[in-house]
Amino acid sequence: MITKLENIFQKIQENILVKFEEFEGTPFRDKSLDSWTRKEGGGGKTAVIANGNFFDNCAVNFSSIVGKNLPEAALKNKKNISNGKFSAMGVSVISHPKNPHVPTSHMNVRLFCLFDSNGNIKDWWIGGGYDLTPYLPYRDDIKIWHKEAKHLLDSFDKTYYKNFSKECNDYFYIPHRKERRGVGGIFFDNLKDLSIENSLIFLENVAKQYLNSYVEIASKRKDTKYSQVEKEFQLIRRGRYVEFNLVYDRGTAFGLQSNGRIESILASLPAEVKWSYKKDDEYKALEKKLLKYINEDWNV
Amino acid sequence: MITKLENIFQKIQENILVKFEEFEGTPFRDKSLDSWTRKEGGGGKTAVIANGNFFDNCAVNFSSIVGKNLPEAALKNKKNISNGKFSAMGVSVISHPKNPHVPTSHMNVRLFCLFDSNGNIKDWWIGGGYDLTPYLPYRDDIKIWHKEAKHLLDSFDKTYYKNFSKECNDYFYIPHRKERRGVGGIFFDNLKDLSIENSLIFLENVAKQYLNSYVEIASKRKDTKYSQVEKEFQLIRRGRYVEFNLVYDRGTAFGLQSNGRIESILASLPAEVKWSYKKDDEYKALEKKLLKYINEDWNV
Repeated sequence: MITKLENIFQKIQENILVKFEEFEGTPFRDKSLDSWTRKEGGGGKTAVIANGNFFDNCAVNFSSIVGKNLPEAALKNKKNISNGKFSAMGVSVISHPKNPHVPTSHMNVRLFCLFDSNGNIKDWWIGGGYDLTPYLPYRDDIKIWHKEAKHLLDSFDKTYYKNFSKECNDYFYIPHRKERRGVGGIFFDNLKDLSIENSLIFLENVAKQYLNSYVEIASKRKDTKYSQVEKEFQLIRRGRYVEFNLVYDRGTAFGLQSNGRIESILASLPAEVKWSYKKDDEYKALEKKLLKYINEDWNV
Repeated sequence: MITKLENIFQKIQENILVKFEEFEGTPFRDKSLDSWTRKEGGGGKTAVIANGNFFDNCAVNFSSIVGKNLPEAALKNKKNISNGKFSAMGVSVISHPKNPHVPTSHMNVRLFCLFDSNGNIKDWWIGGGYDLTPYLPYRDDIKIWHKEAKHLLDSFDKTYYKNFSKECNDYFYIPHRKERRGVGGIFFDNLKDLSIENSLIFLENVAKQYLNSYVEIASKRKDTKYSQVEKEFQLIRRGRYVEFNLVYDRGTAFGLQSNGRIESILASLPAEVKWSYKKDDEYKALEKKLLKYINEDWNV
């Protein structure tokens, strides 16, 4: 059964890679897809493009691991759970485009199963979502991002969008910056409203919608000219992404705590980042505009 | 009394700035020293140089804060403590030099006091240390760094160097990389072996020895030519510094948990960093050499 489930996630990874390859204009799957195994059980396939035509870097990771006890990071908000032998599989995508007019994006879909001593599933749930981090924001793009997410979620459950977009805002909040990581999207965890079959269909649809919406936005902005100041702004703002991922992100913590493949886990970090103590007026003006968008509730 | 103690730490900051200014060749104290206050009590002075002649960036921070309860990060390894009104003051230095032949260095000296309801000190301790993170390592430099630390510590207590250099290796270990952050130095916490007066003299001497040793090493290496490959190697290896500081460092966690001034706390991060998934042979050769030095026990 594990293999059947894995095939679903690997197909999701494949679809994203095909689309990103078109974007990039050169094939990168063959030379970039690393298969790896994990000592404690399971493994994955990591595809990374670095210093491409469209992407500064981009990681599309599939992983499927098994173990004796779920790490703490996976049990947040799970009460009264009897931990034990588990399987955790999923796909995660982080794209850091070159052009600061194109937002950074992140998508993750995952399935957790807990097994009893006979190897039967005693508990399971899904999690995932996607979110957008613009640098030079466009109102229209953000609206598309949220409207299309709502449209998809409404077809499963009319309450999903409202809840999951709020969860996304809450999850991607950076307390020490008093800012969100971006303009949101959807985030869900510990979900088992649907049957396991329908949950997987739901995850497939989430991944597909992410891809369509992101490609739509990126296509519009990828040829827009940008200045050195705007690129510098992007590099400094990317620091927020690093801060969030290393200090707060449960996915990263899960990877570190489960002794995962470190290159794959940290492939989410941007290829190039700057930190700057003092900001000049040009930077401040760009940030002021961005923060206005970031602090807005985009629930549509 | 607080003011008297603060003066000691501010003098330490001043001495370092004077020396670093000589290094930099241009004055930067006047234009770079920001005074700030913290809403909950206390404040500090942050001096940052960015994109200088010698430093890519460098932060020399003094802070003295008061509050109702010490944050968790300050209580690690403190057992049976009755938390309460506290004062925490210290100086921390992080230098990220341009030239990859010159190591990154870090120094911190700090004093914690806990007060009873009458405002009398009910408990106190000191902490601190300094450590070195080379990119293109020189055996001689690392030996100087450790020998001089041992020489200083021996004059206070013959057991200090052995214990504090081990604590440094343990503290600056990056579990997810299975590497130390650098070649070590000294680290101590919860120390109250000496009288409070002698503890402060000890901290002054630690700061002075750090400065002398670092200036000695940096002076030797600062004019050594380097290649683009070596600079790139430094930028990627700096990622380890970011990973350590954001994921594990108690000083950073203390700052974030105590609602400190975020620009000052994160001034420890390098001005420019790269993450790279695939490494080329030149990178691998440089890293192989470096890891050999990093994994060596330098206790002299």
